[in-house]
Amino acid sequence: MKRRAVVLLSGGLDSAVTLYYAKNEGYDCHCLNFDYGQRHGAETESARSIARLAGARLRTLMLDLDWKGSSLLDPAATLPRRRSPEEIRRGGTPSTYVPGRNTIFLSIAASFAEAIGAGDIFIGAHSEDSSGYPDCGAGYLELFDAVIRAGTKAGIEGRLRVRSPLIALGKAQIIGLGRRLGVPFEMTVSCYAGGGAPCGECDSCVLRAKGFKEAGVEDPLARSGRGSGLAPCAK
Amino acid sequence: MKRRAVVLLSGGLDSAVTLYYAKNEGYDCHCLNFDYGQRHGAETESARSIARLAGARLRTLMLDLDWKGSSLLDPAATLPRRRSPEEIRRGGTPSTYVPGRNTIFLSIAASFAEAIGAGDIFIGAHSEDSSGYPDCGAGYLELFDAVIRAGTKAGIEGRLRVRSPLIALGKAQIIGLGRRLGVPFEMTVSCYAGGGAPCGECDSCVLRAKGFKEAGVEDPLARSGRGSGLAPCAK
Repeated sequence: MKRRAVVLLSGGLDSAVTLYYAKNEGYDCHCLNFDYGQRHGAETESARSIARLAGARLRTLMLDLDWKGSSLLDPAATLPRRRSPEEIRRGGTPSTYVPGRNTIFLSIAASFAEAIGAGDIFIGAHSEDSSGYPDCGAGYLELFDAVIRAGTKAGIEGRLRVRSPLIALGKAQIIGLGRRLGVPFEMTVSCYAGGGAPCGECDSCVLRAKGFKEAGVEDPLARSGRGSGLAPCAK
Repeated sequence: MKRRAVVLLSGGLDSAVTLYYAKNEGYDCHCLNFDYGQRHGAETESARSIARLAGARLRTLMLDLDWKGSSLLDPAATLPRRRSPEEIRRGGTPSTYVPGRNTIFLSIAASFAEAIGAGDIFIGAHSEDSSGYPDCGAGYLELFDAVIRAGTKAGIEGRLRVRSPLIALGKAQIIGLGRRLGVPFEMTVSCYAGGGAPCGECDSCVLRAKGFKEAGVEDPLARSGRGSGLAPCAK
């Protein structure tokens, strides 16, 4: 029987590459996706398509995090726009920060993993070329791994761990890895405002465009998006 | 303005004492309660009454943890019964263990705390006289506190921490503390099967009865329960 893994699959590019990485390592992948009040439902649609193509199972869980404090959850808030990669890097924690998000996702993933006998939890976090979220770095993930190893039965018995194969990679390297693994980039959603095509203006689109350019890969979404009339990022 | 705290309030005895402890320290208490598919709804009812009496706010969140693996979530499963405190202590992780439960609760509490500007998260965990859950010890809670301090903006800035004032106390000491703080013991629910009166047979009721006896305090629930005809623990 194949080893089981739980993969956090948002529907974004990084998590899609992570799923294909785990699949390529031979895992039977059980994906978790969260509907936590994002501005758009495009990510969940995208996660569903990617999981289906990868032959993985997917569960979408509703999470009732209706406390405000993030422009990602508040339709009335303004998303950061037109910042350069350098401005994003220097800008500290952005307004799209959702407090404790990865800790919530990882803790539910750990519970699910233990219940289904999966030994590995995959998360596509990385701190290079990312948006200054505090819950994406290697140090943070090592601490969370220690929590799992101390606070779950499977972890204490050495049967559960957190893996973040992208942690030390830049966006261009992630895209290069994804290309080698056959990731369907056209199904991934990066834009904070949703929509099919990158708006090109929000932090996530800026970093995606930079990554594809540096990797020397054409972004199929950018191609399809040009002149498509799809809505750009909400102001 | 009073300092805000988030208090995990299950409706059980330990969390009620913790709420009164935080209240006594002068905090404006925002309680979180979770409906995660327990066998009974008595805990949430109880949490609501206790919070109201303490003048605290309460939010109950639905959590879709429908994966099995715990007798606490599976109506068809058998609860452990008639074990002595010594057997409970030696018995390791019991079947009522819900994988990763406190990590999920604490991570959502951290998110909520950061969103409302609360600096302290209170949890009524303790490892003395408890049921062998891996996510109730001091070592585990210190690790989780480190996750919060590294993985949230408020934590990095030194404005968020986890507090577990009962951690080193035995059940009798907790009951003694609760009596001094004016905790309404008659509103707390301990029995794994729910119901108003302790069944006296499940691990939780055995430990509750031992605690009240050792503290020299009469359990108002046990008094009301005797001969009340309330349903005992489900087999």
